[in-house]
Amino acid sequence: MAEAASQDLLLAAAFVSDAQYNRNIPFKTSPEAVRLYYLYNHWIMRTATYFFIFLNLSLAVFEEPAVYPLPFLVTSVVEVLCLVVFFGRLTHFAKVTLRNVFWKDTKNICIMVAILLSLTDLAIYGVLRMYDVRSIRWSRIVRPIFLINFAESRQIRRAFRSIRNTLPEITYVFLLFMFSLLMFSLMALKLFGERNLQTAEGLPYFKNYLEIVFDLYVLVTTANSPDVMMPAFDFSSWYALFFIAFVIVNTYIFMSLFLAVVYNNYKKHLKNEIRKLAYMKHCKMIEAFNILKEEEGAQFVVREAQWKQLVKLVAPDISNSHRELLLRISDDEQKGFIDKKSFVQLADLLNIQVITLKIRSHPLGQWMPGVYKSAVSRFLRSMVRHRGFVWTYDVIILINAIFIALDEETPYISYAEWVFLALYIIEILLKVYTYEPRAFFGKNQFWNWFDTLIIFAALTATILNTTLKSTTKYNSQQILDIVFILRVLRLIRIVDSIQRFRVIMNTLINIVPTMLTFGGLTLVVYCVFAIIGMELFHGKIQFFPANSNAPHSLECGNAALKDSLFARAKYCKNNFNNFASSFIVLMELTVVNQWHVFANGFANVTVQPAKLYFIAFHIVMVIIIVNIFVSFILEAFFVEYSLEKSEVETAIEQKIQELGMGVQEDELQDEHLLDNMESAEHDLEGEGGTKPQSKGLVFKIASKRYRTVDSLLQRMFEAEIPLEDEGPSVEEFLNLFPTAAIPSNVTSESAA
Amino acid sequence: MAEAASQDLLLAAAFVSDAQYNRNIPFKTSPEAVRLYYLYNHWIMRTATYFFIFLNLSLAVFEEPAVYPLPFLVTSVVEVLCLVVFFGRLTHFAKVTLRNVFWKDTKNICIMVAILLSLTDLAIYGVLRMYDVRSIRWSRIVRPIFLINFAESRQIRRAFRSIRNTLPEITYVFLLFMFSLLMFSLMALKLFGERNLQTAEGLPYFKNYLEIVFDLYVLVTTANSPDVMMPAFDFSSWYALFFIAFVIVNTYIFMSLFLAVVYNNYKKHLKNEIRKLAYMKHCKMIEAFNILKEEEGAQFVVREAQWKQLVKLVAPDISNSHRELLLRISDDEQKGFIDKKSFVQLADLLNIQVITLKIRSHPLGQWMPGVYKSAVSRFLRSMVRHRGFVWTYDVIILINAIFIALDEETPYISYAEWVFLALYIIEILLKVYTYEPRAFFGKNQFWNWFDTLIIFAALTATILNTTLKSTTKYNSQQILDIVFILRVLRLIRIVDSIQRFRVIMNTLINIVPTMLTFGGLTLVVYCVFAIIGMELFHGKIQFFPANSNAPHSLECGNAALKDSLFARAKYCKNNFNNFASSFIVLMELTVVNQWHVFANGFANVTVQPAKLYFIAFHIVMVIIIVNIFVSFILEAFFVEYSLEKSEVETAIEQKIQELGMGVQEDELQDEHLLDNMESAEHDLEGEGGTKPQSKGLVFKIASKRYRTVDSLLQRMFEAEIPLEDEGPSVEEFLNLFPTAAIPSNVTSESAA
Repeated sequence: MAEAASQDLLLAAAFVSDAQYNRNIPFKTSPEAVRLYYLYNHWIMRTATYFFIFLNLSLAVFEEPAVYPLPFLVTSVVEVLCLVVFFGRLTHFAKVTLRNVFWKDTKNICIMVAILLSLTDLAIYGVLRMYDVRSIRWSRIVRPIFLINFAESRQIRRAFRSIRNTLPEITYVFLLFMFSLLMFSLMALKLFGERNLQTAEGLPYFKNYLEIVFDLYVLVTTANSPDVMMPAFDFSSWYALFFIAFVIVNTYIFMSLFLAVVYNNYKKHLKNEIRKLAYMKHCKMIEAFNILKEEEGAQFVVREAQWKQLVKLVAPDISNSHRELLLRISDDEQKGFIDKKSFVQLADLLNIQVITLKIRSHPLGQWMPGVYKSAVSRFLRSMVRHRGFVWTYDVIILINAIFIALDEETPYISYAEWVFLALYIIEILLKVYTYEPRAFFGKNQFWNWFDTLIIFAALTATILNTTLKSTTKYNSQQILDIVFILRVLRLIRIVDSIQRFRVIMNTLINIVPTMLTFGGLTLVVYCVFAIIGMELFHGKIQFFPANSNAPHSLECGNAALKDSLFARAKYCKNNFNNFASSFIVLMELTVVNQWHVFANGFANVTVQPAKLYFIAFHIVMVIIIVNIFVSFILEAFFVEYSLEKSEVETAIEQKIQELGMGVQEDELQDEHLLDNMESAEHDLEGEGGTKPQSKGLVFKIASKRYRTVDSLLQRMFEAEIPLEDEGPSVEEFLNLFPTAAIPSNVTSESAA
Repeated sequence: MAEAASQDLLLAAAFVSDAQYNRNIPFKTSPEAVRLYYLYNHWIMRTATYFFIFLNLSLAVFEEPAVYPLPFLVTSVVEVLCLVVFFGRLTHFAKVTLRNVFWKDTKNICIMVAILLSLTDLAIYGVLRMYDVRSIRWSRIVRPIFLINFAESRQIRRAFRSIRNTLPEITYVFLLFMFSLLMFSLMALKLFGERNLQTAEGLPYFKNYLEIVFDLYVLVTTANSPDVMMPAFDFSSWYALFFIAFVIVNTYIFMSLFLAVVYNNYKKHLKNEIRKLAYMKHCKMIEAFNILKEEEGAQFVVREAQWKQLVKLVAPDISNSHRELLLRISDDEQKGFIDKKSFVQLADLLNIQVITLKIRSHPLGQWMPGVYKSAVSRFLRSMVRHRGFVWTYDVIILINAIFIALDEETPYISYAEWVFLALYIIEILLKVYTYEPRAFFGKNQFWNWFDTLIIFAALTATILNTTLKSTTKYNSQQILDIVFILRVLRLIRIVDSIQRFRVIMNTLINIVPTMLTFGGLTLVVYCVFAIIGMELFHGKIQFFPANSNAPHSLECGNAALKDSLFARAKYCKNNFNNFASSFIVLMELTVVNQWHVFANGFANVTVQPAKLYFIAFHIVMVIIIVNIFVSFILEAFFVEYSLEKSEVETAIEQKIQELGMGVQEDELQDEHLLDNMESAEHDLEGEGGTKPQSKGLVFKIASKRYRTVDSLLQRMFEAEIPLEDEGPSVEEFLNLFPTAAIPSNVTSESAA
C-alpha cells in the first residue's frame, strides 16, 4: 500500500515537473516507466546528450578539410560512438513513451533515419577509402538534425516550426518581389544594354540578363550601391531615377514587407504554440491532482502532507521556508488541504523565483563585534553605503579609461595600472566588509559577480604577465590581449550606476536566453551551409602570408581571380578550406556587405551557378532568420516595456506581505537590492527588531531579469490568451489548432 | 432672419467640414470670419500655397550653385514673391482665427521668423553682391519650415512631433550605444594598435583612436564589413571573434533596439495624436449640432430639411441618391429629424466613400440593340467574361516578356511589338464592348485606368518613335527609353490576375498616401542637408567625362583624392556641386552602403571633421527616419491584415442591404467589381428586373484601398481607443494629454 502510494506520488511529481518545465512527453504511467522517465529527465542524461550532439557537430573541425586534422579512424570511431549514444537515448525514450505515440512522432523517425544515413555513409566512405576512391561524406549535413530533433531542444524546434509555418506567406511576397526584380532587370537591359557602358572594373555593363538580375538582387541588399549605378549615372543623370525607384520599391518597401510578414506570422504562430503549452500544463496539473486527490466534504482535495511530499520530490532544492510560503499561498485559509484550483497553480508558483534573503548580521560583526561596531568601522560602512562612494568610483573608472587610451610604453602609466587594480580590489573588499558577503555574492547579484570576476581575472592575468616578462623577458601576446580586454571590460560597470542605462541593460540581459535559441538556429543553418560550402569550394582559394612568393599568391593561389575585386580586396583568407573559416565567411555573408564580391570570387574559381549558393544563404539567413531575430527583439522589447506582474506573482507577493516577510517593493524600485537589505539590517540594529521578523527571513520575487525562455514567451502572450479555468475540451482544442499533434489518448490512458 | 439662418448653416457646415477633414483651426464665428474661413480652405488657395512652397524650395535648383543657372535678380524676385504669398496666407489665417490663439501658436511665429530671416538674408546678400563681396545665403535652410509649418501639412508636422517626442528615449539608447562603441574602440586600439598592420590600401591599421571610432561606427552600419576586419583576421584568425562580438552587439542588438524604441514610441505618440483628433472631431460635431438644433419633444434634434441643406453645403458633389442613403442611415426610423447621436456620426459617414453604381445597359445596346444582342455579340461578350480570357492574355503577356528580352535588332521581333500592341488594344476594346464604359472607367477602377493609359502611351510613343525614325533616320533616345519602360510596365498587369498577389498589392497601394508623408519628411531633411552640403563641399569634387584630359581628371579634379577609394571607385559624379547632385548623394547615403567612402573622400578634400556631416546624416536619416518608415510599414501592414469593418461602415452597409440596393459583399470577395456588376446586369436582362431596384442604382462601400491618410491612421488605433459617446470633458481631456494645445475657449465662445 505504501509502495503504491509512493508510486502514485512519483507519478504525480512527474506530471507536476513536466508542467513546471513545459515538457510534453506522453510517458507511460507504469511504475517502471515512471522511474525510467525520471532517469530520462535527469540532468546528467540531458547534459550527456547535449555533449554528444555538440561533439558530433564539432567533428567537422577534425575531419577533412580539417582545422586540426585527426586520422579518419579516430573521427569515425567518435562518430559511431555518438550515433550509439543517440540510438541509446532514442531507445530510452521509446521505453518511456507509448509505442503508437513514439512511431507517430516525426522527430523520432527523423533521428532514426539520420542515424541510419550516417552509418551507411560512414561505411561506404570507409570502404571506398580503403580502395583509395575519394567520395563525399554527404551525410554530414544531417548532423544538425540531432540538435533540432532531440526532445531537449524544444525552443529550436519551435523556432523551426514557426519558420515552416511562415513560409507560405513569405513565398507569396517573395514571388512578387522576384517579379518586380525581373521586371526592373528587363527594363535595365533595355535601357542600358546597348549603351556599351563599362563598370569601374572595365567589364561590360548590364549586357547579360542573368547578370543584371544578380546585380540588381545585390542592389536590393544594398551591397553594391552606388557602384552599380555609377556607369549609367555618369552617362546621364536622369538614369539615377531608375535606381532610386528600384531601391525604394525593392529595398525599402519589399524588405520592410518581409519583416512585416515574418513578424506577423511569427507572432501568430508563437501565440498558438504558447497557448498549446499553457493548455498542456493545465492538463498535466489536473492529471497530477487526480492521482493524489482525496474526498473532503463535497469536493476532492490534496492533503497538506501529500502536497509537501510532492513539492519535495518536484523541487528538492527549495528551502523549507520557501515551501511553507508556497503552502500558505496554496492553502490560503490553512484548512490542511489544497483544492483543485490552488493545486493547478503549483506549476506557476514553482516557476516564480522567490529569493529567500536571510537577514543575518555580518560575520565579522559576530566574530569581532567590538571592532566591527566601533565608530571607525561604522563610519567606514556608512561611507561605503553613501552615493558618493559610487560616484567616486565612477570618476576613477573614467580616469582609468583615459589612462588605458594613453600610450602603454611610458613607465608611469604602466605603474598607474597597478594603482587602479589596487583601487578596484579595495572597493570590493570594502563592499564585502560593509554588506553581508553571502548576500553580496547571492545567486542573482549579476553585477557584483561580474565586477569581482573581471577584476580578479585582470589581477591574475596582470601578475602572470609581469612574472613572464621579468623571468623570460618575453611578453605573451595572448595573455596581454586578455589583460587589455579585461581592463576595458571593467569600464562597463559605469553603465550600471546610471538608472536609465540600467533599465535598457536589464532588458537586453533579459533577452539573452532567448537569443540563445537564435544562436542554435544560426548554428544549424551555418553547419549545413558550411558543409555544403566546403564540398563546393574547398581548396579553390588559398591564403598566403603577405611575404609569400608562392605562385599567384596575390590572386589567392588561383589564376582565375586575377584582377578580381576579391583578390584586390585581399579576401583570400575568407575561404571554405575548413570548418572555422567557413563559419567566418558565413558570418560575413550574414552581415551582407560585400557578399557579391564573395559570390563573384567563388563563382570565378568554380562555375557561375555557384552564385546560387550565396543567394540561397542570403534568403535563408538574412531574409528569414535575421528578420525573425529582429521580430523577437521587437516583441521582447515591447513586452519588457509594458509588462506588469502576473496574477500568480501578485498572489505570492500579497502573501509575502501578509506574512510580514516582504521587502517593500517601492523601496526596491530605484535602489540596489543590497542597499535595501542594508537598511533593513540597519533597522534591526537600531530598534532591536520591532517588526515581527519571525525567522529572520525576507522573501522577494526575483526581478524580471532572471526568467526562463518559456516563461518570458508565455508572459508575452499571457495577457492576450483567455484560458478558461478548466480549459477548453480536447476536441475544442484540436479545432483551435488543427495542426497541433496532441496525443489525445494520454488523458484517457493515464486517467484509467 | 433668413440671413441669420443661412449664416448659422454656413457656420455649422464649416464645423462639419472641419470634422470631416480633421482640420483643427479655431476660427472666429462671426459671419465675415466664416466666409473668410471658407475662402481659406478653398482648394485653389491651398493648391496655390503648396505651389509657392515647392516653388520656394525649388529655387535651390536655379540659385548658385545651380543646375539651371538663372540671374540672381530673377531668383530673388521669385523668392520675394513667395515670401509675400506666405505672408498673405498668414495674414488671412490671422483674420480667420482668434487673436490670442494666433499668437500662441508656435507654427505662426515660426513662419514669421522664417519670412523675416529670409528677407534680411536676401537684402544683406544683395547689398554685398553689389559690392562684389561673396557671402553665404544661410537663410536657405529655413525654407523647409514653410513646408512643415503651413497648416495644410498636418501629416508632416505630426511626423515631426512624433520624432521630437521619441528623441529622449532614443537618446538614452544612443548614449549606451556610443558607450559600447567607445569601449570596443578602446579595445581595438589596445589589441591592434601596436601590431603595425596595414589595410588593403596600405594605410596604418587601427592606430588612431578617433579613426578607430569612425571605422567601427561604419562597421555598425556594415558598410566596411569585412574589409575593416581583414588585416587583423589575416594576422590571426582569433581576432575575428572581436569583430563578430562587435557586430552582434552593435549591429544586430543595438540597431534592433533602435527600431524597437522608435516603433514603440512612434506608435504611442501617434495613438495620442489620433485620440486627440477623434475627440476634436466629436467636439466640432457637437458645435454644429448646437447651432442647428431645434426642440422636439424632450430632446433637441436637427430637422431633415436643415440636415439636407447642411450636407449639400459640406459635400456639394455627392449625388442625391447618396444623400438620401445617408439620411436614411441618420434618420433610421424616418421621423423627419436627426437626433444628436446620429448627427455626430455625420463626419464619419461623409468620410466613407460610397460608390454609386448606376446599373444601366451598355450604350451600344441602346443605340444598336439588334446588333448588340445578336447571338454573335452575346457569344463574344460571354467569351470576354470567361476566366479563360484573362488567362489567355496572361500567356500573351508572358510571351511578350520573352520577346522584349530578345534582341531588338531582328526585324521580326520589332514587328512582333506591333502585334502585341494590337492585341492589347483589342483587349481593351473588347472589354469596353462587353462592360459598361462609364463603369469600366469608374473613379475607383485603378487597374483599368492603369492598363489603358500604359497601352495608349506605349502606342503613342511607338508611333512617334517610328515616325521620327522614318523621317529623320534618327532614334530619339528619350522616346525610345520611354517606350522601353512602358513596354515593361505593361507586364505588371499579370500581378493583378493572381488573387494572393492582388491582396499584397492592395496593401501596398493602400500605404502609398501615407508614404507620401515620409516623402515630405525626407524632402525636408534632404533640403537642409543638401543646402549645408553645397556650402561645405561645393566645387571640391568635379566630374569629367571618361575621355577628358583635364588635370587630375582621374582624381575628380582634386589632387587630394589621389589613390583614394573615392577616385578609384569612380564616384566623381557624386558631388555637392548642385542641388540635384546633392540629392542623389544623399539618396546614396540613405542606402548606407559605401557611405564611408563618401565621408572619407569629402573629408580628404576639405578637413577631417567633415565626416561629422556624414555621421549626422546617418543618425538623422537612417537611425531615425528610415526606422520610422519601417515602423509605419509594419503597423500599416498589421492593420491591413487584421482590419475589420468599422461600426459606421457596417451601419451603412446594413442600410444599403435593407434598402435592397446592395451588391452582395460575398459575391465581391474574390471577383472584380466589374464581373459582379456584369452579373447584376445580366440578371436584369434575363429576368426583366424582378428585384426592386427602385432607381436602377446599386451602392457599394469603396474598398479599403481608397482611404485618406488620417482615416487609415484613425482606423489603426480606433479599436484601441475607447471614446465615450459624449467624449471626456475638456478638463479630463487636458489631463490625458497635458501637452495638447486645445483652444479651450472655442467651445464656450461659439456656443455663446
